[in-house]
Amino acid sequence: MMKKITPEVTELAAQLRVDSVRSSTAAGSGHPTSSLSAADLMAVLMQDFLRWDVRNPKNPNNDHLIFSKGHASPLLYAMLKAVGVVSNAELLTFRRFGSRLQGHPVPPLPMVDVATGSLGQGLPVGVGIALSGKYLENAPYRVWVLLGDSEMSEGSVWEAFDHARYYRLGNLIAILDMNRLGQRGQTPLGWDAPAYAERARAFGWRAITIDGHDPIAIDEAYAEAVHETEQPTLIVAQTVKGKGVSLVANKEGWHGKALDQEQCAAAIAELGGLRNAVIELHAPPPISTEPPGITPSAKPLKLPLEEVGAKVATRKAYGDALAALGAARSDVVVLDGEVSNSTYAEIFKKAFPERFFEMFIAEQQMVAAAVGMNVRGRVAFASTFAAFLSRAYDFIRMAAVSRANVRLCGSHAGVSIGEDGPSQMGLEDLAMMRAVEGSTVLYPSCANQTAKLVATMADIPGISYLRTTREKTPVLYAANEDFPVGGSKVLRQSPRDRVTIIGAGITLHEALAASDRLAKEGVPARVIDAYSVKPIDDEGIRAAVEATAGAVVVVEDHWAEGGLGDAVRECLGGEDPVFARVIHLAVRAMPSSGTPQETLRAAGIDADAIVHAVQRVLETGAEERLCYLCGAPASWQIAVAGEDEPSTEEDACEVHARGHRHLAHVHAHEAHQHGRHPN
Amino acid sequence: MMKKITPEVTELAAQLRVDSVRSSTAAGSGHPTSSLSAADLMAVLMQDFLRWDVRNPKNPNNDHLIFSKGHASPLLYAMLKAVGVVSNAELLTFRRFGSRLQGHPVPPLPMVDVATGSLGQGLPVGVGIALSGKYLENAPYRVWVLLGDSEMSEGSVWEAFDHARYYRLGNLIAILDMNRLGQRGQTPLGWDAPAYAERARAFGWRAITIDGHDPIAIDEAYAEAVHETEQPTLIVAQTVKGKGVSLVANKEGWHGKALDQEQCAAAIAELGGLRNAVIELHAPPPISTEPPGITPSAKPLKLPLEEVGAKVATRKAYGDALAALGAARSDVVVLDGEVSNSTYAEIFKKAFPERFFEMFIAEQQMVAAAVGMNVRGRVAFASTFAAFLSRAYDFIRMAAVSRANVRLCGSHAGVSIGEDGPSQMGLEDLAMMRAVEGSTVLYPSCANQTAKLVATMADIPGISYLRTTREKTPVLYAANEDFPVGGSKVLRQSPRDRVTIIGAGITLHEALAASDRLAKEGVPARVIDAYSVKPIDDEGIRAAVEATAGAVVVVEDHWAEGGLGDAVRECLGGEDPVFARVIHLAVRAMPSSGTPQETLRAAGIDADAIVHAVQRVLETGAEERLCYLCGAPASWQIAVAGEDEPSTEEDACEVHARGHRHLAHVHAHEAHQHGRHPN
Repeated sequence: MMKKITPEVTELAAQLRVDSVRSSTAAGSGHPTSSLSAADLMAVLMQDFLRWDVRNPKNPNNDHLIFSKGHASPLLYAMLKAVGVVSNAELLTFRRFGSRLQGHPVPPLPMVDVATGSLGQGLPVGVGIALSGKYLENAPYRVWVLLGDSEMSEGSVWEAFDHARYYRLGNLIAILDMNRLGQRGQTPLGWDAPAYAERARAFGWRAITIDGHDPIAIDEAYAEAVHETEQPTLIVAQTVKGKGVSLVANKEGWHGKALDQEQCAAAIAELGGLRNAVIELHAPPPISTEPPGITPSAKPLKLPLEEVGAKVATRKAYGDALAALGAARSDVVVLDGEVSNSTYAEIFKKAFPERFFEMFIAEQQMVAAAVGMNVRGRVAFASTFAAFLSRAYDFIRMAAVSRANVRLCGSHAGVSIGEDGPSQMGLEDLAMMRAVEGSTVLYPSCANQTAKLVATMADIPGISYLRTTREKTPVLYAANEDFPVGGSKVLRQSPRDRVTIIGAGITLHEALAASDRLAKEGVPARVIDAYSVKPIDDEGIRAAVEATAGAVVVVEDHWAEGGLGDAVRECLGGEDPVFARVIHLAVRAMPSSGTPQETLRAAGIDADAIVHAVQRVLETGAEERLCYLCGAPASWQIAVAGEDEPSTEEDACEVHARGHRHLAHVHAHEAHQHGRHPN
Repeated sequence: MMKKITPEVTELAAQLRVDSVRSSTAAGSGHPTSSLSAADLMAVLMQDFLRWDVRNPKNPNNDHLIFSKGHASPLLYAMLKAVGVVSNAELLTFRRFGSRLQGHPVPPLPMVDVATGSLGQGLPVGVGIALSGKYLENAPYRVWVLLGDSEMSEGSVWEAFDHARYYRLGNLIAILDMNRLGQRGQTPLGWDAPAYAERARAFGWRAITIDGHDPIAIDEAYAEAVHETEQPTLIVAQTVKGKGVSLVANKEGWHGKALDQEQCAAAIAELGGLRNAVIELHAPPPISTEPPGITPSAKPLKLPLEEVGAKVATRKAYGDALAALGAARSDVVVLDGEVSNSTYAEIFKKAFPERFFEMFIAEQQMVAAAVGMNVRGRVAFASTFAAFLSRAYDFIRMAAVSRANVRLCGSHAGVSIGEDGPSQMGLEDLAMMRAVEGSTVLYPSCANQTAKLVATMADIPGISYLRTTREKTPVLYAANEDFPVGGSKVLRQSPRDRVTIIGAGITLHEALAASDRLAKEGVPARVIDAYSVKPIDDEGIRAAVEATAGAVVVVEDHWAEGGLGDAVRECLGGEDPVFARVIHLAVRAMPSSGTPQETLRAAGIDADAIVHAVQRVLETGAEERLCYLCGAPASWQIAVAGEDEPSTEEDACEVHARGHRHLAHVHAHEAHQHGRHPN
């Protein structure tokens, strides 16, 4: 076998090197040296082991290859050229606007499962793909992950090592391109291959150390790695950054730097000149083009719905709904971060243990595994406390770059968890999840709404997020109510409503309590359930606010920034603004332990606080004190409406000086009074 | 030594157990079983090794003890009672509102350096404290970290192992309470002590495995750990969760659950009854109460300021300013995540290598180390790409809970980085950092502004964040300009400004270009530099918006959610709203590689896009088409201003039905016309 491959592989490796240098020089940027170090590793892999049906990149039996060191994209693109997926012309569009060949690999480029470029993510995603292959599909594909040595400093890599051992992922092979040099200098371990191997073995892996430029050694290592086993394998390959180009080989200062034209020409010459071979892979092609083991059933969904008024925590409803969804759809899988008895993902686990994956306290790995399952067509839900999803924010961000469809659930949101204190209170999750491209952010207030939204999430593309509450809350909605994404619900309404109260989740219940008290005091309040925080119900909220003459109280169990308040202001204060006087009740100081009612009260987001805010917003807006429209004091209105109205610009500026906001009002009045509206 | 301590320690351990059970039963919640498992470990530590000056908790030579498993707070509080820091009465306030004894430990409770409760953070913080002790202070204190076994699944723990080895932190001792049981079942490794030890050794640590309930073995292990060495030590202590209380010992289903009154009474009896000893620690007290090695110099600060018009990247200015700050203040330390040649933290590194700490690609450890340095009174700045700070969000969140003062810098913000593509573009950092309690978020546009803001950050309490840009941008501000937190700058202004353009950082330069073009077209625009994103300059922005009659364009190189747009709307659309028609230009679709100008253009946030937005906002707001104040069509204005004005509620509702937003306008006009403003 070795005799056969070595000459071909040497040629292929040279072509990969030449093309890595060429594309990055054409781009004027990129990472040629990080590509050169791994060229031999990838040449042998392609030539002899990688089972890729390059004519059908979507063949579900294809091996998966993840460039966890995504900055070595020139090498990946050179590989795709070598198998005919990318043309020579396209290769030279590297990093250009509109090219598929971006700075770091991004789907939907063929053979690219996920975006990489944030280091330490490829291996955890590989764990997810391997889990699916082994446990859900019984599929023959292998998962190959090319690791950089710098990224071995990321804890997430060790989460992956830990989980791959626990789940005995013999179908996972990591190739460590140990080229010694990071971006700004040597890595912590340099060329200490035994240290890496020892760590891998301590984490239960098989480890093989080789010279990463010796095709025979590489070949032998791969052959050993693919031997039937229950153990994942790490191949520690000692390499030289910039290998093959003497100008840059093993030199500092050449990370992420393209060669100039002259240097490039010299490098190509040194590498033996241009090559444009399109090779045939030697490994047997995938057995079939049929997805192995994916037979999604489609039984009718029977959500467990509760009687209105029953007290059920939304986190419990999440678990119940997951189990119902799991019964209806075999493509639904669930992951949890060792808190399934708190998030209630355990209800699904008990019903479908074979589709539940315990990710232990490793939120980064949990989200990455969900992304990996999505690569294999699974509808993955992943849950932990909302606060701890912040641990995985970089993974969530990258999942969006990967165009992955992933469903996340954060439980124990807000100060309303009470006694456990601020470390366990998710107070930034809405901000975090809103600021994800294309995300959907849902925050149910009752069990039935939760159930419906969980069912909806199964079909939401992109990153969707469900925020659940620890405390039991009464069911508000009958079983026949629907909750479209981007909708809202009006829970209290009368023709004489004087204020709109907007809440969601736990604060909706406080809003309802406040509204009941206000009604007794003769202050009818409209109550809006903004369960769809993103997209927010622009139309519904604007209509309510206009119907209550702009008096608004928004109340949320979240920091004041980035959550429901910002979402509401976004729909009121855009290009086509709606007049609104908004009091925004949110958590504005570090909370502490206490009972849920104490913590809600201390944060100023309970029913009492809402009642006071309504009183204040109506008082501030009362005609006898301030202008209804612009908030200017009433005395200034008289000045406008009466004979003292300023007619010259100087007068207007004088008025302006008394209070900036008045000027706009004056101008408007002038416009009306002097008939400046021509039609 | 052993003969002496064993009986005392047994008594102390029993008291710690009794008090752990009592306090949690009094609270009705908490984690007694997780406390019981570690009681012997902590009893021996206190009695014989912990160098605590309990009469002076702020003695800088005190040993540090971090409960990384923060949920074992009942044990910590029992320890504080045993040394007289907490009374018996206070112990029973555990988890009550207003008590210092929160669900998870939080400063400023004496002896508590940082908040814990998000697992896997105590050891990385301990690394920061140990780094300061070894490298900055040459101090004798030791750092003890009590680890839970569940948290060994968190990658951040292994980042800490890696860094502790690299920096040879012999002053760091981790005690692993290996009680086998997590929250919902067994941990991945259960009672496999050799596996933990092997991992620790592979990461370069000394590892000792013991029976965690054998005081003599514990004592011997500690004695070995404190031997002079360059190696950090992990003590793997096999323990029983719930040890000493047969009802709960080694039982599933007892995590985070208090005993009821009856169970508590039985447990106390089983443990030998109540005890209220206040003990004297045997270890020699700290040598002095003087901070070792902290001699902050206070030389005058000489910031390197540039000529107006010079082109300098703000990231470069960050590095230059850090070096200047380092020269003026010896308490300034800098950490970076292996990208110091990109963030320019390397300028500080070159000037003050002894105060620079390379954290490699381990952002969680980087932020945790900054928190640890803050515990030791250091003014720590930590930098990486803005995108990669998302990796450490949970650590940033917890730093705020810890009341830590930490300065973060995120470089390479936004699509303007160009060719590297979306994985490297920080587009959620403003949202993320705004949603941190008490945070300060700064986003400079030029080198001089950056320098001044960096200097300011040194004295900002809490979590402060500086966002820098990859591209070179012209210096806008002269050396004598100041940039207070909460301020803004007006860069273009005339009495006839028709629109306010609000930008920051890279988009400010686009705004200036747009403004110059608009001026030529006879559309004077006010340009605001909102460099202080949080707190935002409420007054300044409102004044500008009012002066331009509500026409506003906000432009930011960030997702549309949670950033500058939300901040601006927050100051316009509150309780005292300002009329504004806001066009918000932000990144609304996944960007790709390209030149910076291409990516800015594709995102719709370049000068062209701003010019178009200004034209649109003025067109929409033009008097001949729409009401100046409320945006209603002009025809409706006539209806209001003229004789067709609705006077009955039915008419008003009819008008309302034609367009919600009109109603408010009608009401206001009625109020004016009918003199309803009495004074």
